[in-house]
Amino acid sequence: MSSCVLCETDGGLLLHRAPRWRLIRATDTPSFPALYRVVWNEHVAELSELSDADRHACMDVVARVERVVRDHLAPTKINLAALGNMVPHLHWHLIARFDWDSHFPAPIWAAAQREAPDQRLAALSQQLPALDRALIDAFH
Amino acid sequence: MSSCVLCETDGGLLLHRAPRWRLIRATDTPSFPALYRVVWNEHVAELSELSDADRHACMDVVARVERVVRDHLAPTKINLAALGNMVPHLHWHLIARFDWDSHFPAPIWAAAQREAPDQRLAALSQQLPALDRALIDAFH
Repeated sequence: MSSCVLCETDGGLLLHRAPRWRLIRATDTPSFPALYRVVWNEHVAELSELSDADRHACMDVVARVERVVRDHLAPTKINLAALGNMVPHLHWHLIARFDWDSHFPAPIWAAAQREAPDQRLAALSQQLPALDRALIDAFH
Repeated sequence: MSSCVLCETDGGLLLHRAPRWRLIRATDTPSFPALYRVVWNEHVAELSELSDADRHACMDVVARVERVVRDHLAPTKINLAALGNMVPHLHWHLIARFDWDSHFPAPIWAAAQREAPDQRLAALSQQLPALDRALIDAFH
C-alpha cells in the first residue's frame, strides 16, 4: 500500500511499541477520551491473515489492555472492534463506554443520543495519565 | 442476569453449537445478510473475563469463521466487533462488508450512505446457503 496512515505514523499517543504491535491512545475522539488502539505493526488487513501465534499474541494484548482499563475506570462496558474499512491495516479499537456518554448504549459510530456532561468527561480525562502509566507498566 | 436474550435463545440461525460457544447467522440485519455471530455460551460480559484458554478458543473460532467467509465471499473487508452495550453477553459480530453496501466505508451502525442495489443483495443472499454449509463443515 503506497499510503497507509498506520504504516507512516504511530496513529495516536504511543504508549508501548513491541516488535509486532504497538499500543496507542487515540487523540482524535474527544467524546471518547478512553479509546485505546492495539495496532499490528505489519500492514495486514484481516485478523485471519495472522499466524496462530501472532493472532494469540495480538488478542492477548487486547485482553490485557482491557483488563487494565476495566480495573482503572470500571466502565459500564468495553467495546472492541476491528473494522478497517477506511484504513485496512489491522488495528483494534478498545473503547471504555459509560452509561452517561454521548452515544450509550449505541455504538460510538451511531448518532449521538445526548451531550455528555462536561464534568464527567473532564473527570474521565483526569484519570487517563494514571491509566496510561499503568498500561505502559503492564508491558514493560 | 434475570433476562438475557442470548441466554434464552440461540440469537439467530444456529449453525454449530459447541460446549463453550455457538455460531449463528444473524437474521435481523437485512441490509447485511452475511453477518455471523460467535456467541460465548456462558453469560460473561467481557472478553477479559475468559481464561487464557477460553479466550484463545473463542478467537480461534472467530478467525476460522473469518477465513471461511473470506474464501467464499471475497468481501471488501471483514468487520469484527464485540460491543454488548445492549446485551452484555459476550458475542462477536463478524460482518462481510462490500464497497457497494449501504454503509461502506462507514460502520454498519452509522448512517446509511446509499441504498444497496437489490441485485447485489440478492446475489449475496444466494451465496449464503453454501457458506453456511461450509461453516457447519468447518466445525464438524
